[in-house]
Order: sequence, then C-alpha cells, then structure tokens
Amino acid sequence: MTRKEQKLKVIPLGGLDQIGKNFTVFEYGNDIIVVDAGMAFPDDEMLGVDVVIPDMTYLKKNFEKVRAIFVTHGHEDHIGAIPYLLREINVPVYGTKLTLGLIDVKLKEHKLGKVKMNVKKPGDVVKIGGFTMELIRVNHSIPDAVAYAIKTPAATVVHTGDFKVDFTPIDGEPIDLARFAELGKEGVDLLLSDSTNVKRPGFTMSESTVGETFEEIFRHAESRIIIASFASNVDRVQQIVNAAYMNGRKVAFSGRSMVNVTQVAVENGYLKIPEGLLIDTRDVDRYPENEICIVTTGSQGEPMSALARMSKSEHRQLQIHDGDLVILSSSPIPGNEKSVTKVINNLMMRGANVIYQSLADVHVSGHACQEELKLMLSLVKPKNFMPVHGEYSFLKTHGELASQLGMDQNHIFIMENGHVLEVSQSGAKLGKPVPSGQIMVDGLGVGDVGNIVLRDRKRLSEDGLIIIVITLSKDTGKVVSGPDIVSRGFVYVRESEELMNGARIVVEKALEKLMEKEVREWSSIKNEVKDSLKDYLYQNTKRNPMILPIITEA
Amino acid sequence: MTRKEQKLKVIPLGGLDQIGKNFTVFEYGNDIIVVDAGMAFPDDEMLGVDVVIPDMTYLKKNFEKVRAIFVTHGHEDHIGAIPYLLREINVPVYGTKLTLGLIDVKLKEHKLGKVKMNVKKPGDVVKIGGFTMELIRVNHSIPDAVAYAIKTPAATVVHTGDFKVDFTPIDGEPIDLARFAELGKEGVDLLLSDSTNVKRPGFTMSESTVGETFEEIFRHAESRIIIASFASNVDRVQQIVNAAYMNGRKVAFSGRSMVNVTQVAVENGYLKIPEGLLIDTRDVDRYPENEICIVTTGSQGEPMSALARMSKSEHRQLQIHDGDLVILSSSPIPGNEKSVTKVINNLMMRGANVIYQSLADVHVSGHACQEELKLMLSLVKPKNFMPVHGEYSFLKTHGELASQLGMDQNHIFIMENGHVLEVSQSGAKLGKPVPSGQIMVDGLGVGDVGNIVLRDRKRLSEDGLIIIVITLSKDTGKVVSGPDIVSRGFVYVRESEELMNGARIVVEKALEKLMEKEVREWSSIKNEVKDSLKDYLYQNTKRNPMILPIITEA
Repeated sequence: MTRKEQKLKVIPLGGLDQIGKNFTVFEYGNDIIVVDAGMAFPDDEMLGVDVVIPDMTYLKKNFEKVRAIFVTHGHEDHIGAIPYLLREINVPVYGTKLTLGLIDVKLKEHKLGKVKMNVKKPGDVVKIGGFTMELIRVNHSIPDAVAYAIKTPAATVVHTGDFKVDFTPIDGEPIDLARFAELGKEGVDLLLSDSTNVKRPGFTMSESTVGETFEEIFRHAESRIIIASFASNVDRVQQIVNAAYMNGRKVAFSGRSMVNVTQVAVENGYLKIPEGLLIDTRDVDRYPENEICIVTTGSQGEPMSALARMSKSEHRQLQIHDGDLVILSSSPIPGNEKSVTKVINNLMMRGANVIYQSLADVHVSGHACQEELKLMLSLVKPKNFMPVHGEYSFLKTHGELASQLGMDQNHIFIMENGHVLEVSQSGAKLGKPVPSGQIMVDGLGVGDVGNIVLRDRKRLSEDGLIIIVITLSKDTGKVVSGPDIVSRGFVYVRESEELMNGARIVVEKALEKLMEKEVREWSSIKNEVKDSLKDYLYQNTKRNPMILPIITEA
Repeated sequence: MTRKEQKLKVIPLGGLDQIGKNFTVFEYGNDIIVVDAGMAFPDDEMLGVDVVIPDMTYLKKNFEKVRAIFVTHGHEDHIGAIPYLLREINVPVYGTKLTLGLIDVKLKEHKLGKVKMNVKKPGDVVKIGGFTMELIRVNHSIPDAVAYAIKTPAATVVHTGDFKVDFTPIDGEPIDLARFAELGKEGVDLLLSDSTNVKRPGFTMSESTVGETFEEIFRHAESRIIIASFASNVDRVQQIVNAAYMNGRKVAFSGRSMVNVTQVAVENGYLKIPEGLLIDTRDVDRYPENEICIVTTGSQGEPMSALARMSKSEHRQLQIHDGDLVILSSSPIPGNEKSVTKVINNLMMRGANVIYQSLADVHVSGHACQEELKLMLSLVKPKNFMPVHGEYSFLKTHGELASQLGMDQNHIFIMENGHVLEVSQSGAKLGKPVPSGQIMVDGLGVGDVGNIVLRDRKRLSEDGLIIIVITLSKDTGKVVSGPDIVSRGFVYVRESEELMNGARIVVEKALEKLMEKEVREWSSIKNEVKDSLKDYLYQNTKRNPMILPIITEA
C-alpha cells in the first residue's frame, strides 16, 4: 500500500441551505482555517429566536487544530457567529481594516476581549501551518471586501466570498480580475462562488449609477430628502453625502447603526464628509426644508428602525412633513416585503412622496449576476466547482451555469451543510459528512431552545393557555379548594364569562366523578380534567389552548 | 330652506387598507345594497387568527334597511365574509351561476340554510327599492366575474370589481367594453375601480398565452407533469386539461379544494373534461410517466397543501420521482415568497425540475395593469373616481393615473375604510365616517380575540411562560408548600436544571423576606415574586417570559 495521499477537506457548515450564516471550514493535516462565521435571521417558525448560527460541533471536537478565522467582509451573515465561535475557541482573526473594525464593535457588545486581530490588505499573503492565504480585492455592497486564494500542498482553492464586478466603484478600486486570471492559469482545484444573484440574467449595475440618480433627484427636489439605506453600505452613504454637498444640503444621520457604522467608516478613512456638512438630528428644524438631507436606517421596514418610527409618528426628533421626499435605497430581502410596504403606506399617508427601487434606479445589488458569475468561472477555470451562498435551487442553477460553460457534471458539487469535499491532486470526492445544523440563539441562550420549546411557543401563540388550579386534601385526597381557572391569550375573559363559567362547571363535574370513583392518582386526575376541558373548549370555540392542570396538597 | 337633496352614500367597509376583504355598502334613502363581502388573511402579528373580516357595526345598526348582497365573483376576498354577514342579517344574494355555486359550498360549511340565492347573468338588471343593479361581464382569473352599474335617482355608479381586459379569453367572452362605453356616454357620477395591479405598466397578457406555453411544455416533456394552480382559476385548469388531452396524458386532480372546485365547475358547465381523461390519484402509477398530468393545489407554498406535502414526501399517494416536471402556474402573493421558495427547493432536492413564473410564461395576472385601468377610466368617463382594492399607496397611484388622464384632483377620492362618499346630482363630497375596522375570527369566535389576547400570545410566543405555585396557610398566612415552578416554551428544562434551581432559590428568598416583613397581602406577594424572578431570569438569559404567580390557601 502506498502512503495515504494528503487531502484538503472543504466543509461548509453554513450557507448552503439558505442565503445567510456563511461558514466554511478548510482542513489540511493538523490545521483548520475557518473562512467567515456568519449568522442568519430566524425562520417564521422559530418563535422568539433572535439569530441562528451553524452547528460548530465539528470545530469543538477538533479545537486543537483550529488556527485562525479569515473574514471576507463585514456583513452579519459573514461575521455574526464570530463571537460564538471565539467564545469556544479563541483564535486570531484576519481581515481587512473596515471588516475588523466592524468585528471589533461586535466583540465589545459581547464583552469579548483578548482577541488577536490582524489587519491585512488585498494582495497580502498569510502563512499558517500548511495553509497559504491570499486576500484578493472584490467589489461588494460594503467596502474592503476580499476573496481568498487558499493554497495547501494538496490543492488550491479560490473562495469568492460575496462579490460583484464593478468597473467604476465609488472607492476607485475594481475587483482584481487579473489576479483571478493568474490563479486560473496557475491552476485552481476548486472554486467556491457566490450564488445569491444566480437567477438574475445580465450584469449587476455599477454602484456609481445610483449616484447619478441621486444627483438628478437632489437637483430637482424642493422639499426635505430622507434616504434610508443599509448603514454598512458605506459607498452608498458616500454618494448621498456627495449629492447633498453638491446641492447645498446639510446631512443628519439617524438610527443607532447608521451613527455607529458611519463613525467607524469615517475613523478608518472609508467615508469622507466635508467639514461643517454634518448636523445633529435635533437641529434639523433650524434649516430650510430644501437644505436638509436625513440619512437613516430602516430600508427593510424593520419595525423598530428610525424610518418605521417616523412613518408612525413615533420618532422623538423627526416627524414626516407634508411633501417630504423619502427614498428607500434598497430592495426588500425576501420575507421583508410586507414590512417594507407597510412603511411606504404609512409614509404616504403622512404626505410623503416615496421613491423606491421599482420607480427609479435608487439601488443596485452587491452580488454578481449570471454574466459576472460566468466571468469568474471563465477566469478561474477551476477543475472542480462548489456553488455556495444560497439555498438548493440557487446552487443547482449555478451548477447549470457552469455546465453551460462546458464544465463536466462530475466536477460540479451541489453540497449540503456538513458535507465534506476532499480535494487532492487526484481530484475531488465526497467524504464522510460531519455534524451540522442550525443552532438557535435566544437572548443569552445558545442552543437551549429546541423543538419542544418551539412547539410549546407555537401552541401558546395560536390559542393561548388555560391553567386549572386544584387543591386536594392531604388526608382524604379530596378537593378542598378550586378549581380556579386562569387564562392568557385565549379569549378576552371579561366578554367570555359564560364560556369560562362553563369551563369551571365541566372541570367540577369531572372532579366529582373522579372523587366518586375514588381516583386519587394525580396524573389520572390531571389527564381527566385536561381531556374534559379540551373537548368542551373545542366544541365551543374550535380552539385548542394549552391546558395546564396544577394540583397542590393541603 | 329647500327640501334636502337625495344622496347616494358609498361606504367602503373593507378593501382600502389592504388587498383583501372587499366590502362596499351603497345606501340610498331607506335601502342598503352590499356589493361583495370578502375576508382577508391575518397579518403576521395576528397570532392564531384564522381570517379577518370587516367591522359590520354600521350594517347591524341599519339592519332593517339592508336589502341584498350583490357579488362580483367567487374569490374568498369577495365572498369570504358572506356567512358572517348572513348570520347577522339574512338577505338574498345575487350573482352569476359559478359565483353562487361557490358561495353555496361555503354556506354549507357554515351550516347556514335558508338563504335566497338569485342566479343572474351579465346583462341582467335587478330592481330593489331605489336601486337598479346591472351585471356587466368582465374578465378575471375566475370565470363568470361581473362589474355592476348601480343606478339610483341620486347618482349612477360603476363598480368594476376585480377585472382585466382579455380579448381572447378561454371561455370566449371578453369584457363588455361597449357597455362600459355606453354607460360613460349616459353619464356616470362615480367609478370604483380595481387597483391591485396599478403599479404595473402596460397591459396584462391574455389567459390564452399561458395555454400556448403549456402546449409547448407538454409537447416536449418526457416525464410526469405536475402543475400547481389556484383551483378557482377554472380557465387555467381548462387549459391544462386541453394540453394533457392533446398530448395523450391522463389527468388526476389532487388537493381538497382542487377536487371540490373542479366538481362545481364541471357540474355548472364551466369546465369541460373529455370522457375517460380523468383518473384517480391512486391510479397514477398504473400509467407510463409520460402519460400523466397531476393538477394540484399548493401554488402559494401553503404548508398543508398537496404540493407541499409531496415536496416533503409526506403525501400518502403521490411521491416526487426523479425527473418529474413541476410547474407552479401562479406568482407568489406578497408574504408567501418564502414558503413558495421552500417548496421549490424541496421539490428540486427530490430530483424534480421546477418551472415557475420567472422562468417561463406559465402564469398571467387576473388584474388590469395601467393601460387597462386607463381604458376603463376613459370609457366610463366618471365625474368622480374612487380607487378601490388596495392599500393606500395603490389607491394613491391609481388616483395619479386618473389625474394624468386629465381628471381634476378634487374629483378623485382616496378614501379609508369607513369613510362615506355622498354622491348626488350636485357632486360628491365626504360625509361623516361610520365605524370600521378589522374583526378577527379565531375558530368559532368572531371578535373575541382583541389586543390584550394578541399581546399575551405574542409574549408567550417569544419567551414562553413560567408559573409559580405557592400555598399559604389559612391560619398564619405563611408558606406551607412550594414554590413549585412550571415552565412552557421558555427553556428545555432538562438541560437547564441549574437555571431553574436558581429561580426557585430566588423565589424562596423573596418569600422569606416577605414573611419576615409580615407581608400577607396576596397582590404584594405576587408582585414581589414576579419582580425578583423577572430580574433573575433577564440577567441570566436576556429573556422575558410571562410570569404567573399562583397562590392557594390551605
């Protein structure tokens, strides 16, 4: 037998079942490198859950191998799980300046100190164990985004992270296509590429086109301008600032994340604001309406955001005036359509004119469309391809795109989270899967909310709860007090006296029968009470509240 | 003073805050006619609520005036509230044959008998009290849809209902544009027109274009074909049946509403199925794959629908085979995007090829786009205009469309539910609003779920519930048993022993202190226990479960 061939294992722990919680593990020999550690927002069924992160069991089991986290950019779906990972395994973090600045804010919120942060820039190369990691500039909807070329003796991998191709980006630095081409010539064994926009034909428009629309709108507007955008889209904010400056408007930032992120961006040189342009939201009313531009959060209709509060007249400092021009510089993320629409309606009812993406070019995507994805595949010319960042149908479509370019079906790997791709000089093949899944974070609890808790929450949310308190005599086992009935989330009790009295009578009768039959076992009493009440309530209301009989002894 | 001028009051009780629960009241002298009585689906915040209907207080107060319900077509958002209205006020119902057939099914479900149903056809005129009601054929995504011309001595109104303009409809009868034009010439005081598609430029494609796509797909398919569509879109089902017949495929209907509605449609002559074409879903596997077409419900990704169950391999008779061609002949209703995507992913994971609207022309809308809306406005030439069927921003946009056509802003009425428009020979003006709002239906309860119940459900759904049971001595007022702690939907108790023990200790300490201070009042004890536990839990979990202290006496 020959010596076992060295392999690079590529293990996506997140990002392949949905757009979100991107998290890929690269393992070679005794070294593990993690690229991105993101979170996702909970599904509608995950009641009360704050965020979702990937199952990290595999890393915890192999904690002594984990050497570092490399981050592609500073969006939550790429950095949101870093605190949870660092809490388990404290390793250094590598990334560009803005990315690490945003991670730093996050670590402070989580009260995590003593993390070694290594600022790198595109073109830098970092050697760790058997890995050589190279940062490659890409364009995206946040500055300072990079892809990684990941080299090991077994194989070379290119991981695009989130990207688009922008020949005229705001910060002046287009994606480093030449480097991707060079790597392609040298030979790439595996490409991992962003599938977010794979269903859109064509080429994503340049960020600078949005600036042209802003210029046009600002030049003609006579009212106040209120623009909602993602705080992290620093280039977008820069273009708003520029348009305001050119057209004699002061700028006020509104919303906690807008204020925080723009501060980090200014401090690190990513956002340039002319002297004297910025004013406080409290001073907005001291200027004429046509000299004001408010930049705010809330472009996704988030109910607690500054824009949503303005739309409901619940903002302490900012009210919508008749004739205000509100621009939603974004497109709704799937699932947010209804909240966005609600905010638009409320704004219009208060007299605002609202411009959103379907009306004017006030937003472009940060992700590559089909032609850009083809360009990436054609430059990198990978031997094997693993579409990432997207749910199954996106990955499948991206795979089909690759096969249209002539790639052999056997070299296209549509994987699931926890699947393992083993890459070596002799090719790529699937290995034995590792544990994977979604871990729900609720408050401080990581993973303590599971299916039983969610099932109870769902039941409680749909039909509420009824508690029956019965006190039995210690000596005779007979009922000495109760039944008392308490309900929450079931019916409005004051208007349902008849129903609640009926419920009490049903329970009393059930108890009488039990006493007659000399049943003294608590579990039997509880079940009987529960069943009789359940039937009564369903017949009278067609509802199934949770019924909790509580027995005490006196 | 002159004698008071006779007025026609037009009162939308639903449909102006959202797309759904369309419901308009027309009042002239001592007569009231209701046009459509629809329901809507609950918002995300209306936990556990089944459907929403408009507040009918105004009709209940004026019940002796109500003469009849006229219905435009058989969709739920136009007929869903009829049982609730008839339960309060039993009046005759007028509409076309299919519409009344579908209402009949609904009344049987609600066990409402003795309703007088009057089948009318387009062109028919019905005189009731001071009203003359004329049915006018329109096109829509269900056969037999009509608009109404509503004439009273005070004013003539045209109410389009839902409509589109289809010159080549499947049943061969286009919208009666000539009649709308004629009415326009005679003079129309007020137009109420469908705003659902007002944000889409152009002209909605003909239903027959979908048939051409089906023909093309059926001709080339070699696998089974599974098509999901709305059951009520009988013309769509007809086209599927035709394509199947022409290409040698048997048809099986799957899903309760598909089976029920197609039966009503066949019985009333709206759906024609060639002899021997229909087979039972149980017999599907007895035919070669390329001779099968399954028509199913679930095009909106409804979790309990036949298609969703197939996609999760939970359907008793139908499994997805590798290579099956699944067509979603629909577009997702806002809010359903995520469920639809989930079904598509699951189908693809089981090997199906999935075609949906963005990939091919397998769906057209049933509502008029901008050019059709302009056509309607231009033909009817109303003196006054009230856009209906849509939330504020839709109505506003429809109003702007009318003013582009030269209509005076003062004659365009962007109304809210419960607003009253008084129309007479001297013009139209707003009257005093009447009670309006949303009534939530949960099981058998109509309106018994209100804000308090919803707030409790929300709280319970997010962080669950903790019950503390304490028994106090009747004689001394001291704690004789407990505290016992029960939780639901909070944490997985088995894995949170430490937390729950800590909670017990916190409550015990609070009780000790209270006993020391000789506090014996139950409300004080409850509050103190609640507050101390609340703080403890929030510090340790950052969650806020509902806390219910229960005190019994022994």
